Amino acid sequence: MILDRVFRIAILGASGYTGAELVRLIATHPGMEIAALTADRKAGQTMGEVFPHLRHLDLPRLGTIAETDFSGVDLAFCALPHATSQEVIAALPRTLKIVDLSADFRLRDPAVYARWYGHEHLALDLQAEAVYGLTEFYRDDIRKARLVAGTGCNAATGMYGLLPLLKAGVIETDDIIIDLATGVSGAGRSPKEGSLHSEVSEGYHAYSAGKHRHLAEFDQEFSRAAGAPVEVTFVPHLLPQNRGILATIYVKGDAARIHAAFADAYADEPFIIVLPLGEAPATRHVRGSNFVHVGVIADRSPGRVMVFTTLDNLTKGSSGQALQNANLMLGLPETAGLMAAPLFP
Amino acid sequence: MILDRVFRIAILGASGYTGAELVRLIATHPGMEIAALTADRKAGQTMGEVFPHLRHLDLPRLGTIAETDFSGVDLAFCALPHATSQEVIAALPRTLKIVDLSADFRLRDPAVYARWYGHEHLALDLQAEAVYGLTEFYRDDIRKARLVAGTGCNAATGMYGLLPLLKAGVIETDDIIIDLATGVSGAGRSPKEGSLHSEVSEGYHAYSAGKHRHLAEFDQEFSRAAGAPVEVTFVPHLLPQNRGILATIYVKGDAARIHAAFADAYADEPFIIVLPLGEAPATRHVRGSNFVHVGVIADRSPGRVMVFTTLDNLTKGSSGQALQNANLMLGLPETAGLMAAPLFP
Amino acid sequence: MILDRVFRIAILGASGYTGAELVRLIATHPGMEIAALTADRKAGQTMGEVFPHLRHLDLPRLGTIAETDFSGVDLAFCALPHATSQEVIAALPRTLKIVDLSADFRLRDPAVYARWYGHEHLALDLQAEAVYGLTEFYRDDIRKARLVAGTGCNAATGMYGLLPLLKAGVIETDDIIIDLATGVSGAGRSPKEGSLHSEVSEGYHAYSAGKHRHLAEFDQEFSRAAGAPVEVTFVPHLLPQNRGILATIYVKGDAARIHAAFADAYADEPFIIVLPLGEAPATRHVRGSNFVHVGVIADRSPGRVMVFTTLDNLTKGSSGQALQNANLMLGLPETAGLMAAPLFP
Amino acid sequence: MILDRVFRIAILGASGYTGAELVRLIATHPGMEIAALTADRKAGQTMGEVFPHLRHLDLPRLGTIAETDFSGVDLAFCALPHATSQEVIAALPRTLKIVDLSADFRLRDPAVYARWYGHEHLALDLQAEAVYGLTEFYRDDIRKARLVAGTGCNAATGMYGLLPLLKAGVIETDDIIIDLATGVSGAGRSPKEGSLHSEVSEGYHAYSAGKHRHLAEFDQEFSRAAGAPVEVTFVPHLLPQNRGILATIYVKGDAARIHAAFADAYADEPFIIVLPLGEAPATRHVRGSNFVHVGVIADRSPGRVMVFTTLDNLTKGSSGQALQNANLMLGLPETAGLMAAPLFP
Repeated sequence: MILDRVFRIAILGASGYTGAELVRLIATHPGMEIAALTADRKAGQTMGEVFPHLRHLDLPRLGTIAETDFSGVDLAFCALPHATSQEVIAALPRTLKIVDLSADFRLRDPAVYARWYGHEHLALDLQAEAVYGLTEFYRDDIRKARLVAGTGCNAATGMYGLLPLLKAGVIETDDIIIDLATGVSGAGRSPKEGSLHSEVSEGYHAYSAGKHRHLAEFDQEFSRAAGAPVEVTFVPHLLPQNRGILATIYVKGDAARIHAAFADAYADEPFIIVLPLGEAPATRHVRGSNFVHVGVIADRSPGRVMVFTTLDNLTKGSSGQALQNANLMLGLPETAGLMAAPLFP
Repeated sequence: MILDRVFRIAILGASGYTGAELVRLIATHPGMEIAALTADRKAGQTMGEVFPHLRHLDLPRLGTIAETDFSGVDLAFCALPHATSQEVIAALPRTLKIVDLSADFRLRDPAVYARWYGHEHLALDLQAEAVYGLTEFYRDDIRKARLVAGTGCNAATGMYGLLPLLKAGVIETDDIIIDLATGVSGAGRSPKEGSLHSEVSEGYHAYSAGKHRHLAEFDQEFSRAAGAPVEVTFVPHLLPQNRGILATIYVKGDAARIHAAFADAYADEPFIIVLPLGEAPATRHVRGSNFVHVGVIADRSPGRVMVFTTLDNLTKGSSGQALQNANLMLGLPETAGLMAAPLFP
Repeated sequence: MILDRVFRIAILGASGYTGAELVRLIATHPGMEIAALTADRKAGQTMGEVFPHLRHLDLPRLGTIAETDFSGVDLAFCALPHATSQEVIAALPRTLKIVDLSADFRLRDPAVYARWYGHEHLALDLQAEAVYGLTEFYRDDIRKARLVAGTGCNAATGMYGLLPLLKAGVIETDDIIIDLATGVSGAGRSPKEGSLHSEVSEGYHAYSAGKHRHLAEFDQEFSRAAGAPVEVTFVPHLLPQNRGILATIYVKGDAARIHAAFADAYADEPFIIVLPLGEAPATRHVRGSNFVHVGVIADRSPGRVMVFTTLDNLTKGSSGQALQNANLMLGLPETAGLMAAPLFP
Repeated sequence: MILDRVFRIAILGASGYTGAELVRLIATHPGMEIAALTADRKAGQTMGEVFPHLRHLDLPRLGTIAETDFSGVDLAFCALPHATSQEVIAALPRTLKIVDLSADFRLRDPAVYARWYGHEHLALDLQAEAVYGLTEFYRDDIRKARLVAGTGCNAATGMYGLLPLLKAGVIETDDIIIDLATGVSGAGRSPKEGSLHSEVSEGYHAYSAGKHRHLAEFDQEFSRAAGAPVEVTFVPHLLPQNRGILATIYVKGDAARIHAAFADAYADEPFIIVLPLGEAPATRHVRGSNFVHVGVIADRSPGRVMVFTTLDNLTKGSSGQALQNANLMLGLPETAGLMAAPLFP
């Protein structure tokens, strides 16, 4: 791939897993170079000290956001915690293109944001401007956007399995269940008892059952796609593995029509693979990649169907999606830096 | 615990995981001693050679079934593969008490058996005699039984979460979904590509979605409990861990009434713990034990409820359940040898 | 096992993994009951809230040490952090029998303690009184002791592989290497980046190479056993698993004589199994148990031998050893509560 | 990277892990395309059926070796089992460039081969022609070679930590110990009891201690480098993880001189990173990449030093190394297709 120019990129919050994943992906991207990396609490350290797997790269030292010079930066990825992100972005130059990986700009309705996140939004003008970053469904808006909000990783997994069906009207809308399992890297690198190896390995359990915050995104996008309010049941579980999300979605409809709706919606998508009818995907087969595998299986009970979607939460679920969106915003080929095959085993 | 006598036990098929689990449990059982161990293909080896974690025990050498003297044996556990079991048991003395861990005697209707297992049953008289070994629901029958059929491990996990509700009539019967995840030890010790560490670890996927054989047990027991045909949707998934099954069951009803039905049904059960309403159990908290944890959580959508049940597939899901049944059949205290706390972490 | 009386036990620091392991083991111990559990920062909570795998037990609520009444307590286990332990124990009744699981009373020489732990010892009289808790080598002293210091878990693993050889004089003493690998539960339940599942799983690395604190114990015990200063090289590694330590010890001597020295030293030990010459043990085969497996293999180069020892760091490496010592101190059978077979798989 | 032409590649034995790894790497290689894939027992299947993580690629269907047309093939990778490889390669066109990943052509002395592999070599002329594929040490020979023998993955890990030291004469040669731990993917995809998840996870043990076949490669290369016979002690262990090898090498010498010898030897190597003196590498930080991390730590005992080397057994340990060699053989940039950063977490 030969590109006219190389864009200069900043990554704010580079000491977390999504920050490191962005660096990993950009490291071999032909059209981007990393101009600045920030991590306020680890400022002064090298990236190789914080993430030894990136030792071989020649990268700028970690700095603070305050001391970062954004004048020569074309695009910034914000991989900061929720709530921090809106504050930081509000203070950045208004001409800077931004892909935000937090939850701060995902919800269009400020009242809905306040209800799910427990406080008023502090940057309503930015929220109004932000485009929801589910690339395959907002591609044209993203191309023109200055600020793109990355989706929740669980949310994206569920949406790839339902948006085409709701748009095509091939399933009942009042009886949808999203049962989902996710790897622990989604919980981030901050030390928490619940993320310890001794607590996670050799075990499986549901968390935030029926009340997870990504429900806000589901409600927003599913209702929009269906043209009427849709309220799903959603139960995420924690898996004893690092990467990968798999959604098992229980719907009512006809398996063949459902499969056809996916085949149709995703026919030209470079990253979404629809499996033959009757096959189920596995998280391990998308690990470390930007690919999504979608499967459809008919239940023995007529009219009941299981839809399966899987993606890597750190790649297609956050940093890979963010890079895909950045490619669009910068006029680069959408797949640049993202075609590496999954790592298996 | 002081017992009048020590019963002599044979384990047929001792070289598999359920066989080893029986030995592990019986090793500290005050009322049983192991009189014979068989494993036709490993006959002549010591148990310590086949399972080094049992090296410290003084056990009979592995023999063949043919050469085993059953005259002094009080009870035999059959931990043999499906189909083999019915053939072997048909040839055993008709006075011998037997707990079978295979699928061979679980289904009361020979036609149903033939449909799900693909061949006619070869021991119809034994099938007629067998008692379904879900201890908490067939305790009195098991006490008097000569031949008890261990339940499927997935089947048991689902039933602990639904039988009390169907009996109490507190849920709708036509819209039940059992989403389940299980550790890989349930697939046994026979080398299979799909059970390799490289294939299982860091991954999660559904298998036999909507058509798993344990559906036959679900249909049989749920319909009996409800007094009318009940047909659930059932999707098992494989977890990257060795032990543990967790069922996430989606039902329609009132969460408080559902919770009360469990509290009522399991009030006196020594191995079943009903968690406070709103809490979800985890596989890791029952590992290596005979305990079952049951949780109930209300969905945000009124009338929708999630029930969670978890157990260890090798213990309460097979060998522990088998021992619990054997205790009853021999007139021993039901909990003998089974009260060890789970191993965590 | 019928015992005359049931001893009343307190566990100080019950909210960590070694505390939970003590509860797990004592839960089925015929001669002990738990009279008090403390965890200053979690006081008021139930043990089932802190460790859901212990939900089925009827246990006292967690309290503070200050509010604990020790008058009816026969023996206390201290599962507190290093340095805290000496302070707490100094304030306990001087008549109370104590098994300490910290590093505070392991080193006989206060100067050595100060050098390795970076501060003066605060309870020198207690340190003078304490007996080193490696049961098999200090059994008689432990029987008569009021205060027993549990060994380091890595230290114990190395010592089981070297003490009999140094005592028997069958190896060279100036060229000993202990290469060791340990599960992550040894790092405790406090949240630390390095103990996260995402950091530990699918990875292996050395830590504190050549300078780990357990070297102080090695120096003390090996020199004593050899009757001359012995200084080993010791490199521990972190394994992507929860439980288990395996030491690979490189020595110079004759394999047959070395094997014979082990067979001789451990002939009557209930928990130490010497494998046939040429066989290597595995951590998984002692998981959750108080057993130690010892193996000896001759290198292809004459005069070089590998010794392997493995144990479960939470059981024989700390809480199981502590219970074994408590049994001796209370006049109970040494193996009471400790004969459960390992959990595999 | 713009290349003049695209070379046509065949992969023989594409249904194993090293075959799949080659496909993964070549998928984004700018100068290679896959012309043929063989797997005799899976002929007729698509690569996506055998390895679903490669579903997104447009690849030739798996065929047999016999039916493969090698006329347009520039280079073949042989990822076949030991012994099979020499038979297959003997029958291939003598003009075809070949990188063999088996053990068949690693040993220069046929007598040594016969001793370690238990049978006479069947293609002595090819063995005479083959170049040992440890790229950094045989780069010039590999450039000119027609047939290159990939090294053992354990062997490579040990050699990266010792060859520069033996060449520089900075360590004693008669007292070297290589303690090594490896992930289970090195055992391949063939179902074996010892590779099952239930057998591997949560456990660690040594295998082939003191007698592993890679000793033959060590003897050959170390003696050559030292200019005198060198015979090391070597103990590999199996880790509960899929990818990664870490060698802990115990040597006698001066840590600073040893570190300097590495810095010197690897100064211009694109894939070998020497860590600052005193730091230890981890397998997880090279996962999925062609990088090698080397660390040096001084023991507390003067004159004793630990050297640590780590690499990914499927990448730098076999398929990545093979691709690096193929790049040289075809006149391509050595790093083409190999610069992807490691996948962490």
